[in-house]
Amino acid sequence: MRKIALFDSTLRDGSQAEGISFSVEDKLKIVQALDTLGVAYIEAGNPGSNPKDLEFFFRSKELTLQHSKLVAFGSTRRRNTKAEEDPNLKSLVNAGTSYVAIFGKSWDFHVTDIIRTTLEENLSMIEDSIRFITESGSEVFFDAEHYFDGYLSNKEYALDSLRAALRGGATTLVLCETRGGLISSEVKRITQETMALFPGVDFGIHTHDDVGCAVASSIAAVEAGVVQVQGTLLGFGERCGNANLASVAGILGTKLGCDCLCGENLERLTSVCRRVAEVANVRIAGSSPFIGKSAFAHKGGMHIDGVQKNPLSFEHIDPMEVGNERRLLMSEVAGRALMLKRIARIAPNLDKDDPVTVSLMDELKHLESEGYQFEGAESSFDLVIRRHLKMYRPYFSLVHYQTIGSSPYADPHSDATHAAVVKVKVKGESAITAAEGEGPVNALDRALRKVLEQFYPTLKSVYLTDYKVRVLDSAGATASKVRVLIESSDGKQSWSTIGVSKDIIEASWFALSDSIEYKLIADGVEPSGE
Amino acid sequence: MRKIALFDSTLRDGSQAEGISFSVEDKLKIVQALDTLGVAYIEAGNPGSNPKDLEFFFRSKELTLQHSKLVAFGSTRRRNTKAEEDPNLKSLVNAGTSYVAIFGKSWDFHVTDIIRTTLEENLSMIEDSIRFITESGSEVFFDAEHYFDGYLSNKEYALDSLRAALRGGATTLVLCETRGGLISSEVKRITQETMALFPGVDFGIHTHDDVGCAVASSIAAVEAGVVQVQGTLLGFGERCGNANLASVAGILGTKLGCDCLCGENLERLTSVCRRVAEVANVRIAGSSPFIGKSAFAHKGGMHIDGVQKNPLSFEHIDPMEVGNERRLLMSEVAGRALMLKRIARIAPNLDKDDPVTVSLMDELKHLESEGYQFEGAESSFDLVIRRHLKMYRPYFSLVHYQTIGSSPYADPHSDATHAAVVKVKVKGESAITAAEGEGPVNALDRALRKVLEQFYPTLKSVYLTDYKVRVLDSAGATASKVRVLIESSDGKQSWSTIGVSKDIIEASWFALSDSIEYKLIADGVEPSGE
Repeated sequence: MRKIALFDSTLRDGSQAEGISFSVEDKLKIVQALDTLGVAYIEAGNPGSNPKDLEFFFRSKELTLQHSKLVAFGSTRRRNTKAEEDPNLKSLVNAGTSYVAIFGKSWDFHVTDIIRTTLEENLSMIEDSIRFITESGSEVFFDAEHYFDGYLSNKEYALDSLRAALRGGATTLVLCETRGGLISSEVKRITQETMALFPGVDFGIHTHDDVGCAVASSIAAVEAGVVQVQGTLLGFGERCGNANLASVAGILGTKLGCDCLCGENLERLTSVCRRVAEVANVRIAGSSPFIGKSAFAHKGGMHIDGVQKNPLSFEHIDPMEVGNERRLLMSEVAGRALMLKRIARIAPNLDKDDPVTVSLMDELKHLESEGYQFEGAESSFDLVIRRHLKMYRPYFSLVHYQTIGSSPYADPHSDATHAAVVKVKVKGESAITAAEGEGPVNALDRALRKVLEQFYPTLKSVYLTDYKVRVLDSAGATASKVRVLIESSDGKQSWSTIGVSKDIIEASWFALSDSIEYKLIADGVEPSGE
Repeated sequence: MRKIALFDSTLRDGSQAEGISFSVEDKLKIVQALDTLGVAYIEAGNPGSNPKDLEFFFRSKELTLQHSKLVAFGSTRRRNTKAEEDPNLKSLVNAGTSYVAIFGKSWDFHVTDIIRTTLEENLSMIEDSIRFITESGSEVFFDAEHYFDGYLSNKEYALDSLRAALRGGATTLVLCETRGGLISSEVKRITQETMALFPGVDFGIHTHDDVGCAVASSIAAVEAGVVQVQGTLLGFGERCGNANLASVAGILGTKLGCDCLCGENLERLTSVCRRVAEVANVRIAGSSPFIGKSAFAHKGGMHIDGVQKNPLSFEHIDPMEVGNERRLLMSEVAGRALMLKRIARIAPNLDKDDPVTVSLMDELKHLESEGYQFEGAESSFDLVIRRHLKMYRPYFSLVHYQTIGSSPYADPHSDATHAAVVKVKVKGESAITAAEGEGPVNALDRALRKVLEQFYPTLKSVYLTDYKVRVLDSAGATASKVRVLIESSDGKQSWSTIGVSKDIIEASWFALSDSIEYKLIADGVEPSGE
């Protein structure tokens, strides 16, 4: 089995992404997550440019890693100085990692116009710096910055930069597509042509996603023969990001039969990605290949039908291979089959041609045309079914609610701007209470739970984790229909409910009361009627 | 210049993405946006499977499109029926578009195991259906579903499906990589091998992003010779989405010198993408190639230094080519320049180093960190500048407002659910009034304009044309911050204002009162003070 070393730069190139910032603690957590996954190398920072990174390398000595090697990153020495006097290079040695990535210029334009030195001096900077680190006892990977643009502009000079790195003692030459502007066929061609000139030398690839081809270009370079792929697990990086290593690993493991994550570890891919996203405080796009929440979610009716007959009809792999899962979504394009399956969970004996089923389907379609969208609100969907099948006895009934907001607010010492009054009937008893909140929905939410907790103590554990509002057909302006989606949790389970109305308060009320009913049903609480 | 036709399926394949749902109004808006961009074909729905899509095609006849052709999408006839009796095919004809996309099965496994018919019958289904549509007067593109998997499983049968489509009269054969599991080199090889067998025939490509290579595979197919690329502008689609046409257009236009958007239209790419995202109520990832907010944002110190010396050092194209802009994140020099330009429009003599300018910049930055986003609310932006520069005298002041909502509502014969009371001071006079509405914002909006119209009759022409709500950081649930954007019109001009608060009523109040002030300033009404 061909072995490819994944080189993750989430903590270095990834931290150059807009909105990404890691504390030393965050970095230690991410290193451990990447080690669990079995990434070969973890580029963890630039100790010469950043004192936080230097601190990280000292603290990292506490870690015991199973699979991964830490790599410190830094530039070549400054022009016209000696390597042994260069503070950045000395910091790299002090960081004490067994592997060091040194980047240097391969594009003549960058040498003359950006760092502003001679072409000869730049080659010496590469050679000297790598020799200095190598002689200190670390293995050096050379990141040939802007290699591809350099090759297209001055091929011989780009090749000379690689030769200088080899003279210095670099063990792997990493070709960097730094601007990210090349299409994959160009990356492949240049990688092939270059490697042909250096038989027996190990090469790596480092791409950026500025034209949306970073993953494909990395794979193209693997086809050309590189042994190391640099990127970041979730694609974080300057501008459009680096090659997404989750996608690269998925392809190498499931399509090309390469070993890139120590055997079985591909099954941990989704969970490790979610862990890293959590530490980075970033939401993974649902559509992310292999690991996204929607990566194996099916919505179109024919797709759902196909997947139920044989998952391979619309899935390129079994989602379990990468630790993800299949999901069948409810929607107007999903068709009858899925709705029937969902109905069967609640009423297993109901025939699909029963008039009740038919009228239920009509009701669901009607609700969707009114703006309900059950794909993110499966708990409300279940309640619709139960109510329609008369398998539902209410836990409470609303007598009335009232929300009162004012500016200035009556109590100037409070953050609240609204009060809500809710009166309900439970088990023949009436109860009324009031609560305040920031905005009318917040006040209503508090008042409703407050008045019901006395009857149903299990509701004390419920809290809202998400609240979304979408104005449907916003051209109706402030009298437009509004769709409210809420997600609730009791610390163990979470569930989603929906409400639609022209009045945002009423839409929120529907979603809030569905949330409470769903929790009570799920807990098996006996419905006590109105 | 080589011409490539872009075929956008945002409204069809895109609506099969999780979380995406379009009303008929949304669809009409997106068609107009895509037409502005100059996309060749817009696949707008499946009239046979979905009554909303059929309604769309009827309504679409009101539209006058400059560049784009509408395409209706549908499947081949059912097995063992006649094409002329198939309700789906009849709906396609009724939709009345000049172009129709018919999809059929090219993978033997799908024929036998999913739609469960014979291999022969499937070929007849393809041929008959296409002939039926062709004879009705529309041009047919054949979407060869699962073509690549089919080619790998049973090459001759996959080719037979294309031959059947040609016999039926299809003018373009679109090879679909439906499961999205192939790497780009495979897509290219199979496209090349296939096209070599059909000299003179037009081919298209349709890819999915399940391994993160959809864009690269589309480009690989263009290199192989296809003339049509199918995808969705923002990459929406089942599972991981379709090929992102913004990226494809960016590459075709700026790298391969192809004409795919009617000449100069590439400069509209970013703004049209943002418009479509707004209608879809989806946030564009900052890192999106070409069009993302971070696509030309530079954060690393060396990158910023390089870009200031020469932007080409770290940018693969000039962001203006695709209507995007450069941003330097550390120094915020770019942000400053843009703000200064805007300030100069209102106060042309203000020096950029004036302390007033500096403190205004600080205020704007503070507001942005609070959740204000002036990109879609330039009128509020102007008001912030005026207030800060003391170039502002108020037209009215709020004494207090109150909103009262209840369920059931006091007046059962009214659609209203809320009343609002607004008391203001204008020219030393107090005035108070009340109004009802569907929801608290609608009531407040009506009451505010009602109380002010007596002082400023010009406000009688003002009405709201759009109202949007976005929950910022929705994990704060019902106590999350909310951003309200409204668009107002007086029948001649339209303008946009914004408000941010944890209380949706207060956020709406800010946006509503800004809208009124902006209108009065624009009309040159003398501010009469409080």
